[in-house]
Amino acid sequence: MGKKVLVIGSGPSGIFTCGALSSDKSIDVKVYERASQIGGQWAGLRTDLVEDYGHRHSSLYRGLWINGPKEAGIELPNYQFEKDIPSYFKQPQMVKYLEGYVDHMNIRQKFHVSMNVIKTEFNDTTNQFHVKTENTATKEIHDEIFDYVAVATGHFSMAHDPHFKGEESFKGKYIHAHDFIDGKLYKGQRVLCIGGSYSAEDIALQCWKFGAEYAHITHRSQKQLAYPDWPKEVLERPILTNIEGNTVTFKDGTTGEYDVIIKCTGYLHSFPFLPKELNLKCRNVMVPSGLYNQCVSLQNSQLFFIGMQDQYYTFTMFQLQGFYMREVVLNKIQVPDFSGRLAEYEADRAEGAALKDCYDDIHFQTRYVNKLAKLTGEQNVDASEVFVRWENQKHKSICGFRNEQFRSIYTGHLAPPVPTKWTEDMS
Amino acid sequence: MGKKVLVIGSGPSGIFTCGALSSDKSIDVKVYERASQIGGQWAGLRTDLVEDYGHRHSSLYRGLWINGPKEAGIELPNYQFEKDIPSYFKQPQMVKYLEGYVDHMNIRQKFHVSMNVIKTEFNDTTNQFHVKTENTATKEIHDEIFDYVAVATGHFSMAHDPHFKGEESFKGKYIHAHDFIDGKLYKGQRVLCIGGSYSAEDIALQCWKFGAEYAHITHRSQKQLAYPDWPKEVLERPILTNIEGNTVTFKDGTTGEYDVIIKCTGYLHSFPFLPKELNLKCRNVMVPSGLYNQCVSLQNSQLFFIGMQDQYYTFTMFQLQGFYMREVVLNKIQVPDFSGRLAEYEADRAEGAALKDCYDDIHFQTRYVNKLAKLTGEQNVDASEVFVRWENQKHKSICGFRNEQFRSIYTGHLAPPVPTKWTEDMS
Repeated sequence: MGKKVLVIGSGPSGIFTCGALSSDKSIDVKVYERASQIGGQWAGLRTDLVEDYGHRHSSLYRGLWINGPKEAGIELPNYQFEKDIPSYFKQPQMVKYLEGYVDHMNIRQKFHVSMNVIKTEFNDTTNQFHVKTENTATKEIHDEIFDYVAVATGHFSMAHDPHFKGEESFKGKYIHAHDFIDGKLYKGQRVLCIGGSYSAEDIALQCWKFGAEYAHITHRSQKQLAYPDWPKEVLERPILTNIEGNTVTFKDGTTGEYDVIIKCTGYLHSFPFLPKELNLKCRNVMVPSGLYNQCVSLQNSQLFFIGMQDQYYTFTMFQLQGFYMREVVLNKIQVPDFSGRLAEYEADRAEGAALKDCYDDIHFQTRYVNKLAKLTGEQNVDASEVFVRWENQKHKSICGFRNEQFRSIYTGHLAPPVPTKWTEDMS
Repeated sequence: MGKKVLVIGSGPSGIFTCGALSSDKSIDVKVYERASQIGGQWAGLRTDLVEDYGHRHSSLYRGLWINGPKEAGIELPNYQFEKDIPSYFKQPQMVKYLEGYVDHMNIRQKFHVSMNVIKTEFNDTTNQFHVKTENTATKEIHDEIFDYVAVATGHFSMAHDPHFKGEESFKGKYIHAHDFIDGKLYKGQRVLCIGGSYSAEDIALQCWKFGAEYAHITHRSQKQLAYPDWPKEVLERPILTNIEGNTVTFKDGTTGEYDVIIKCTGYLHSFPFLPKELNLKCRNVMVPSGLYNQCVSLQNSQLFFIGMQDQYYTFTMFQLQGFYMREVVLNKIQVPDFSGRLAEYEADRAEGAALKDCYDDIHFQTRYVNKLAKLTGEQNVDASEVFVRWENQKHKSICGFRNEQFRSIYTGHLAPPVPTKWTEDMS
């Protein structure tokens, strides 16, 4: 009898893991999704999903465009976008692609929605997982046994929400990026985004585009984002040191007045369904803590974690991690014992710690996906040239980089231009 | 009922772990020793123990003096040497100290000899170890259950025996340091020691002292040992590249003729009684792989490993690790979960990787024992000044450093001079 595998979560990482595992018919795959529909964050915008199953979930705001081209680690070798899809687009095209993949791979029957995984315990004697789930619709509790588990629950829905000095006294609107739903709401407002990465730059620009009086960014990094085409209303300031009333003080002693503060301080990895001894504490870094080959639990070689790293490659990497898991489940690849896993892990972490900039990161993650492709005999998805071009374009123009067109790394097909430029897209 | 603890091995690490654990009467401690007497390597010389229980064991050769003073991490705060014992001495004094400690602590009844631990499995459901032993005298097999296990089997009895090019063609005597039993056997011989550490320097000098024609040392380190008082018959050469007949070629193209080659290539950590998932693969380094706080299994917080690190501190560190284990067994100290252990481990490994020389090592290990003392409320054993003085004296005189006298770090008592200098001791 084939091995029983549970995939927890039906966002992109769950969908592509399921597709990869299902490419071998002997593997019995089930995907459990706590929401009432598949797709994870991409299934709908922040507002759409709030009430879906009683958990806060998607971090997608209205107006969000993808921030890298589909040719950069998104588009799969075995299921490609329609030829008329530009390199950059918004949520509806993404969900269409995800749904299209599920149909193309004929795996829809493997997904079970409204199934919340409560507990996942490993039995040392039987070498199997005992999994407890709750049907969120009927409230029924189920107990099941699986040989392998893939955690594919993502790491962009549990807000990292640090405290800033004086925040209690702030007189305006004070939210986390996770609760940012629409740039239009901040027209005429004075906005401060706290954070130095994707969310801060994108949310500040959303606010600016929809008419904020100004949208400042404050972060602790020594290195400024310093995009040459920052609009004059967007200003990078040193890290804030205090908030009092509407006044925010920065490290250089200057102050600013704000109506809105948005903490773009990232997300936490959270796995409440795992017991203490199998839990994973990791941050959004290139080589996540606690994982052999960046995807196998150090503690238990039957427990996989998909897409836990800081991602350049996304869908293509998720599917390759799924292929790698398939080979392990089929016993075609042997995961080393703990000592072996630990030794390789430490070497990977040392390599990760030595990465100096985004270009190092890109080449490092490219080596990783190339390695997975080679190990599994699957098609190479090396998009390093696309990533490098994208980084360069973005560094040149944060407002304009989404106007660019890329060629498919598989077919050479050039994506059409975007129908509306990002700066002009007010929908 | 008290917790049941098994200590595997009755060498120094086992003895002091037993003593430390036994300082709390509620802990039920048993020490299993495969040999017919306690003491481990120190129980007798290499030749004495060969036939003891069918395992090769002690690496102690006739004529061996301890290579650091008893005041440097050996002498315990709670059981001190007789006032007439010099800082440096030989095996009989050491075994007397070990036996004296056992009597002083009144723990002799806890030791069980001729008990070879065959298997140590952890049961995940009961959270206990299932231990299988063989009585090597009666051949009876026993099964027992313990709550905690301390592995105290040492790491200087399983030879690391690498292959050197052409060694099959060597016409002379070709042995590992583990099988070196007496310098007298090499009188008039041309000896080559392969290795750059304690064994090589000491065995080369033993051979020289007992009349070898010459005793060369070859090692791969860029840094020469370069003791200013190397006898003229002891010469450091670059690493060997080939052996043919009696001729050894070195990396610089020079050659030498030898009757004897002694591989002073160190020892391996080996734990054949541990299952794959609990095994530890580590080398003789300051921060051993796979251990939280340098002594708790990353995989299982009920499994301890005593003295697995490259040791400056020895008996004092073993006893402190035992005290630390006592606190864990008593639940006065909580070992963090896997993620927590891993995070601290990685920080320790990074610190270990940054150590530059023996002085860094000494201060690092001093911080470690200080930390254990503080955590456990036990007496401080900081001997860093003794270690630094010892290193300096040894760097000045490899033939003379054992003539030095040290003061007890506890009482200030100055040890008497050695009755016979090492260079003149032909017994």
